Amino acid sequence: MKLYGYFRSSTSYRLRIALHLKGLAFENIPVNLVTAENKAADFTQRNPFGSLPMLEADGRDRAQSMALLEWLDEAYPSPAFLPRDIEARYTVRELAYAIATEIHAVNNLPVLKYLKDPLRHTQDEIDVWYRTWLKRTLDPVEARLAQLRTGDFLHGDAPGLFEIVLIPQLANARRFQYDLGASPHLTRIEAACLALPAFVAAHPDQQIDSPENKS
Amino acid sequence: MKLYGYFRSSTSYRLRIALHLKGLAFENIPVNLVTAENKAADFTQRNPFGSLPMLEADGRDRAQSMALLEWLDEAYPSPAFLPRDIEARYTVRELAYAIATEIHAVNNLPVLKYLKDPLRHTQDEIDVWYRTWLKRTLDPVEARLAQLRTGDFLHGDAPGLFEIVLIPQLANARRFQYDLGASPHLTRIEAACLALPAFVAAHPDQQIDSPENKS
Repeated sequence: MKLYGYFRSSTSYRLRIALHLKGLAFENIPVNLVTAENKAADFTQRNPFGSLPMLEADGRDRAQSMALLEWLDEAYPSPAFLPRDIEARYTVRELAYAIATEIHAVNNLPVLKYLKDPLRHTQDEIDVWYRTWLKRTLDPVEARLAQLRTGDFLHGDAPGLFEIVLIPQLANARRFQYDLGASPHLTRIEAACLALPAFVAAHPDQQIDSPENKS
Repeated sequence: MKLYGYFRSSTSYRLRIALHLKGLAFENIPVNLVTAENKAADFTQRNPFGSLPMLEADGRDRAQSMALLEWLDEAYPSPAFLPRDIEARYTVRELAYAIATEIHAVNNLPVLKYLKDPLRHTQDEIDVWYRTWLKRTLDPVEARLAQLRTGDFLHGDAPGLFEIVLIPQLANARRFQYDLGASPHLTRIEAACLALPAFVAAHPDQQIDSPENKS
């Protein structure tokens, strides 16, 4: 498998976590989002969305991270990202999709770029935008976790679809100086995940295109 | 089942289509998004996201439309929203999730409200925003459909997850004067869907809270 991604892209980060959790070997191919390498013709011929991540796997170029995560879990079932029980699957998907649609999508790089140009907002205004969408959805996710009395993970004793989506979002939250003080369930789950090798290997700072990478 | 929704909410529209396709009886309970009834305490106690749709089903208040659609398809498998073949499931989800995350999420009512206040954009600027995100993702979806040589539906001879997400989005596109002239695959699928009773019954104009409803 070949993963076309960018170290700081939170959807690329999702896929890196997922592939490491599944124990699947993959080649990490950096595509620079900031210089718009993803909009070059040779890339959009393969992925018309011009989006990252793109996974070349099982003879196909695949885009859209949530569809990719669902596909990975069906094509490579162990360890599972979703519980077997239908009710528990709903519990996990409700919170995973809340973060994917209500936070990530609205704070995605193309949206932030549009706020800057043509809409001419300042970086301060963009930062407030970013934290607004974090708060509006992380607070109810935290409330749900409290209702569910979750432990180190949303379901069972291992991370799954929710944690794969959550951890990159919390990394972004910290980058935008978002206060996670009122989110004890989220930060407990984060700490448990960040102690696992799959999450360590997937971290943006560990990627070959990151300036933080010292190897 | 009880569906708490709003006639013009495109995610409520998704659920109405889905429930009609499954042949499930449900009570439609209007919640006025414009007057923010969804943010009232008696509603957010049941759904901390304060979002529509909310489905009261099988003893649980459920939010997040994509998680709801996946749950409905698992709990009530016939007729299926997703093919059985893993590769075909990926094909459907890639395009369904592209629309859900890259168009709907960015054009959702809370985002448009924020552009107006506090960001003070004009309705013209908001309309351009809306059509921008439509075009950036409908064009590649159209390209994918051309590659796949689809007929009246993305997969097989019946609508599924993709069409459930697409049709409300195209209704919005028309409301915002978006030009669908370069989208022949999308409009062919739309025409096929709008001829089906489930889509007719789910249409915003047919709902009891719509001013267009004459019944």
